[in-house]
Amino acid sequence: MKKIVILGSTGSIGRQTLDIVRAFPGEFDVVGLAAGNNLELLQQQMAEFNPSHVCCIKPLDSLPDGVSFTPMADMVALEHVDQVMVATMGSVGLLPTLSALKHGKSVALSNKEPIVMAGSIIKDYEKKYGGVVLPVDSEPSAIWQCLRGEDNPIQRLMITASGGPFRTTPLEELAHVTPEKALKHPTWQMGRKITIDSATLMNKAFEVIETHWLFSVPWDRIEVVVHPQSTIHSMVEFADGSIKAQLGPPDMRLPIQYALFYPHRLPNEMIPKLDTSIAHSLTFEPLDMDRYPCFGLAVEAGRRGGTFPAVLSAADEIAVNAFLEGKIPFTGIYQLVEQVLAQHDPSPGRDAEEVLEADRWATALASKIAG
Amino acid sequence: MKKIVILGSTGSIGRQTLDIVRAFPGEFDVVGLAAGNNLELLQQQMAEFNPSHVCCIKPLDSLPDGVSFTPMADMVALEHVDQVMVATMGSVGLLPTLSALKHGKSVALSNKEPIVMAGSIIKDYEKKYGGVVLPVDSEPSAIWQCLRGEDNPIQRLMITASGGPFRTTPLEELAHVTPEKALKHPTWQMGRKITIDSATLMNKAFEVIETHWLFSVPWDRIEVVVHPQSTIHSMVEFADGSIKAQLGPPDMRLPIQYALFYPHRLPNEMIPKLDTSIAHSLTFEPLDMDRYPCFGLAVEAGRRGGTFPAVLSAADEIAVNAFLEGKIPFTGIYQLVEQVLAQHDPSPGRDAEEVLEADRWATALASKIAG
Repeated sequence: MKKIVILGSTGSIGRQTLDIVRAFPGEFDVVGLAAGNNLELLQQQMAEFNPSHVCCIKPLDSLPDGVSFTPMADMVALEHVDQVMVATMGSVGLLPTLSALKHGKSVALSNKEPIVMAGSIIKDYEKKYGGVVLPVDSEPSAIWQCLRGEDNPIQRLMITASGGPFRTTPLEELAHVTPEKALKHPTWQMGRKITIDSATLMNKAFEVIETHWLFSVPWDRIEVVVHPQSTIHSMVEFADGSIKAQLGPPDMRLPIQYALFYPHRLPNEMIPKLDTSIAHSLTFEPLDMDRYPCFGLAVEAGRRGGTFPAVLSAADEIAVNAFLEGKIPFTGIYQLVEQVLAQHDPSPGRDAEEVLEADRWATALASKIAG
Repeated sequence: MKKIVILGSTGSIGRQTLDIVRAFPGEFDVVGLAAGNNLELLQQQMAEFNPSHVCCIKPLDSLPDGVSFTPMADMVALEHVDQVMVATMGSVGLLPTLSALKHGKSVALSNKEPIVMAGSIIKDYEKKYGGVVLPVDSEPSAIWQCLRGEDNPIQRLMITASGGPFRTTPLEELAHVTPEKALKHPTWQMGRKITIDSATLMNKAFEVIETHWLFSVPWDRIEVVVHPQSTIHSMVEFADGSIKAQLGPPDMRLPIQYALFYPHRLPNEMIPKLDTSIAHSLTFEPLDMDRYPCFGLAVEAGRRGGTFPAVLSAADEIAVNAFLEGKIPFTGIYQLVEQVLAQHDPSPGRDAEEVLEADRWATALASKIAG
């Protein structure tokens, strides 16, 4: 039995991780669950999976016998824990991720922000302490699967992007799109923050930054290709020009299961299969940088490094919330993030404290600007 | 320096194999070349690559000093030969393939007929003598590449088919299509026989039989999907539903190079790369069995096994020639092959002699019917 801890267990990825645990009885022992404010669901999960450690933002009234309230960074460090699923949101996942790596754990990282904010620190921790980060997001998971068995240098990564709900919206209308429309992602069912990040393509820039660190690929070898059907999850070109792609119906349970069972692939009827009995088209188009200004801004912050990516991530979190609350227009997300980045006086971001300080600074400034 | 022998060196795959040899000076020593009737090109190749062994159908007037005329089955068995490229046509490749395997060689097998005719014998030889067959054809090569690093059972192979030049021709016109039209393949530049086999989809059935043997995959786990752009060369679905595809512009030099350098992937500017800067579509449709009756007929012969696949292959060779010579209509290819298969009294096909006997029988009968 693999002993696992799930951080963010009541969110979209957390719940789907528990779907996989449920589908393979006897394979997993859920040692710890951490949630945010959804106490009702957390308590249901506790009743079903019997973790001995829990964590949440609001304290629970009472805990069952034998269950301790354990902070995330401690929960992941427990000696008998084999694997940690980090499915939290935003910067909150950074310290638990570093703690898990420091204790040599295998970390299935769904939460992008830690590696966006602190990619070089995470890679250093992997080297220093022997823990390992496994991708969970469908695009980096696709790349990871394509690289399996290949010791060859990567010529080019091609990350696919659906283009989100506004791929064909006239540019002049983008200032007036509603949160409701922005939350209707054409192919993926996801949480609210990442759905908006998919509409601005900020999320795709985060994936560029993530894959740069995860697979040690130079920035100029990472391309984004718009592929509205989200069937091909990403592609890798090797030195000889041969390309491998990983594909399938968009469903997060596949990359989650892959990270949990790696290197094994187990049959799971719950995961939808590609239907080849009906005619279909997969289309590809180059990325329109004018339509998605957040993308260029964010990749540039990634390339500059230091504390810029942490500022990017924090400013974006505030900007997305401000948009969802109706405080700023959709196009204001770019403007807000751009303003905060422009005012940032960077430091090298050598440790978590420096990175989190930049995160706090950007959060405060972005909140002030958003009003 | 890898010492190689190229059988069928003046054909399309043979010439492209020499393109790869030429692109990597110092990597290969061409020990032997075998050709059919194109003596002019063979002599040019001899002057450029200095093989010490040659073979051709018509005897050469004179041989340069130090060059011997060596039958193919002996040439591939020479002690210092590392790898053999079998790029001959039809059943002529069978005995040299078996000889190479018997002598423990690595056999890059472009010529499909040997494995179609004698798949089980070839697999037995691999086990018994330690030689190994490597696919060269783009579809089996794609599958081989997708399987790299995966020890997981194969759930499903999806072999792509362009559908050939008559994918959208009204069915009632098929009886009247000319050899000229049938030789215009929409995506691949190939020899005449395989181009006609691609128009009837006989070639795709040969690939089904080939992959069944090469990768030990049960028949009902092999699917054919029509994909007119020939960009995705084939796909593999694993137990968890994850699919890997190998893709790139249609060019045989990639799979040839992959087989020659395996497991290494070397940069080669000559091989065209996928252009992601222009919008494009990849389309997929189910195979229309009524349009391609040869496909079902041929897969059935493969499944029945014994000497049926040898009869299939021999009858098809005669039928394609008869069509190219204007003796029978395009739709007559199916009729001729079907007739010969129907009259065959099968034997288990346990050794090469039994298989070649069936080949001779079918060749004679098909030639008689074709007139």
